[in-house]
Amino acid sequence: MLKPNMNYGELKDSYLFFNISQKINKYLEDRPAAKLYRMGIGDVSLPLCDEVIKALHSAVDDQADPERFHGYMPECGAPFLRRAIADYYAKRDVLLSDDEVFVSSGASDELGDILDLFDRASTALVIEPAYPAYVDANIMAGRKIYHLPSGEENGFLPEPDGKVCADLIYICSPNNPTGAVFNRAKLKKWVDYANRNASVIIFDAAYEAFIEDNSLPHSIFEINGAKTCAIEICSLSKTAGFTGTRLGYTVIPKDLERNGMYLNDMWVRNRTTKTNGVSYIIQKGGAAVFTEEGQKQIKANIAFYKENAKILMHTLDKLGIKYYGGKNAPYVWMKCPYGMKSWEFFDCLLNSVQIIGTPGSGFESCGEGYFRFSSFGTRDDTVEAARRMMNFLKQ
Amino acid sequence: MLKPNMNYGELKDSYLFFNISQKINKYLEDRPAAKLYRMGIGDVSLPLCDEVIKALHSAVDDQADPERFHGYMPECGAPFLRRAIADYYAKRDVLLSDDEVFVSSGASDELGDILDLFDRASTALVIEPAYPAYVDANIMAGRKIYHLPSGEENGFLPEPDGKVCADLIYICSPNNPTGAVFNRAKLKKWVDYANRNASVIIFDAAYEAFIEDNSLPHSIFEINGAKTCAIEICSLSKTAGFTGTRLGYTVIPKDLERNGMYLNDMWVRNRTTKTNGVSYIIQKGGAAVFTEEGQKQIKANIAFYKENAKILMHTLDKLGIKYYGGKNAPYVWMKCPYGMKSWEFFDCLLNSVQIIGTPGSGFESCGEGYFRFSSFGTRDDTVEAARRMMNFLKQ
Repeated sequence: MLKPNMNYGELKDSYLFFNISQKINKYLEDRPAAKLYRMGIGDVSLPLCDEVIKALHSAVDDQADPERFHGYMPECGAPFLRRAIADYYAKRDVLLSDDEVFVSSGASDELGDILDLFDRASTALVIEPAYPAYVDANIMAGRKIYHLPSGEENGFLPEPDGKVCADLIYICSPNNPTGAVFNRAKLKKWVDYANRNASVIIFDAAYEAFIEDNSLPHSIFEINGAKTCAIEICSLSKTAGFTGTRLGYTVIPKDLERNGMYLNDMWVRNRTTKTNGVSYIIQKGGAAVFTEEGQKQIKANIAFYKENAKILMHTLDKLGIKYYGGKNAPYVWMKCPYGMKSWEFFDCLLNSVQIIGTPGSGFESCGEGYFRFSSFGTRDDTVEAARRMMNFLKQ
Repeated sequence: MLKPNMNYGELKDSYLFFNISQKINKYLEDRPAAKLYRMGIGDVSLPLCDEVIKALHSAVDDQADPERFHGYMPECGAPFLRRAIADYYAKRDVLLSDDEVFVSSGASDELGDILDLFDRASTALVIEPAYPAYVDANIMAGRKIYHLPSGEENGFLPEPDGKVCADLIYICSPNNPTGAVFNRAKLKKWVDYANRNASVIIFDAAYEAFIEDNSLPHSIFEINGAKTCAIEICSLSKTAGFTGTRLGYTVIPKDLERNGMYLNDMWVRNRTTKTNGVSYIIQKGGAAVFTEEGQKQIKANIAFYKENAKILMHTLDKLGIKYYGGKNAPYVWMKCPYGMKSWEFFDCLLNSVQIIGTPGSGFESCGEGYFRFSSFGTRDDTVEAARRMMNFLKQ
């Protein structure tokens, strides 16, 4: 008799964003005409930039032409895109060979798939609050998980404490949900720790494009020693509005070896066995992001979202509510007012002023009492949400 | 110290199609001007049909428009596409609810990912010759694999023999590489066997659209009892030329339960944790395949490839060489002439007449002495390859 993967039984009942959408659906069932201000899930609102659209149309045209048609793509990524991404890193003096870069369907897909490289008896350390999928994907694999809480006392940027020696270490910087960003010195401590313990850091750099402070690292590979202890997973979802278009990339240095096995080689083997590559059309669209004009256009979009963040931060400042993030990240992480719990504040905002945010406790228990706003909404919605919050909370 | 997944060390050195491309590269290095006739890898040569191209362009336009822009897609598939696929099944009296259909990035991706649903101690039975990834993906998970060889004695369609009781059973019909197709009676035996032993059949239906004999089942769900023992994985790669565009779908019936866990629920949990859905653009292109006009257009393309298969079969008939497939499948599976081994015949065809096929032994040892031709080439190449083979082998 076939036994399913019983680890699934260990998962909590359902998923944060699923719970949120259930609550929203319930609300709209009762009030079908209600207008909601969605500042919750990190989905973008601006359309793809012109350069990407042009490249996508041109790639679709290729697929209509017998001479230019593309069939199976190389499993690890189209050479033109691996090259473009390596060049993007080179601008920050991170030198990678093209075959250290892998094209993916997005960071969330990759964060799940990459775990196949590690023994199931490995342990995982998750710095929290954190994207819930880090934990859930490891529960599915039956791994022991260490939760490392962070909080105001360390600005949501904890240091390795030496008490726990985990095999896999998840770091997301700029952080989702707190918006906190590791500086070079603090990140170096994690790199040294990982090298010392022969751990591997899974570095989630999905929000790197939102960093505006020049002293902060965009990539863990800006830190000396990272090439022997880290995998970096990145995405065009927030960088270029690809949430529904899907594209990401992963860097696995050739020097990353554990127990005599090279993780880059293993990943090549994984991809060539378990995928047939990413859509030619989407890869062409992705490559346009890395052109000079593409970079200009996506930066204008990011500046637009940053302005949204400023509107939110300005409101919280006026209300005297403490918050983190917003400056080098698309998320504003606020303390719930009046000592409210996260879901309590969620219900309160939804029912009173029709604003949707994300309860901090959904990112593990140390997020309790916090609330995440995303700056990816439209300008109109952001302005109106800020106005409503101001009126509602100043009382 | 982090331990990698040491099962990767159990994999054979490298992958069939990778080996082939190495040989080709070597050949072309020495003779850069050589024209090759590629009848090997199952990649298509016809561009996407007009309906799909129109839908792709229109979806790209949506991504440029703030009002029509699509962000995150539902993780299990866009409702419009799940609906279209369920309707497609309904035409053959297979009644599925939309949420029994999952949209994927393609069958090869899904064949790898789906294994997460099963305990690693499960055993897998692979009917061979077979697509090498079935075995490799299970080796990566450390599963015990039973190889069930097939051959001329059973027309490459073996029956369950009762000696081996595996948890997972791989069936590919129409078969890659042999082109053999299970009829209803033979498939029913496997369904009954799986239900009796509480096994789960992974049914690879990637070539179903090539069936022309009306009595043969396109889907395992045309067989009574399959909904309690089977998962069907399908792809638009061959059906609609999506090898480089990427889209597939998977059916997991709601009645499929093992050990108190429902595999459909588990897969929803897997997708919502480990993916953010498939590209909106590509799903729109995929939906066009299932329209009336789309079906007409892809059937014309399939008829074109079938004509290629006929040209190959006609040549083999004239040469008196025995073969399988070709009629209800895109592959022609021939016996190597003069008792040659598979790789020997590969080298011989490449070096003498510049034709590339796929060595049968690459699909496990019982494929030794056979050779696979794909009918997905251009007409010119197919005609010329047939001519060259005729001249070369009639001697």
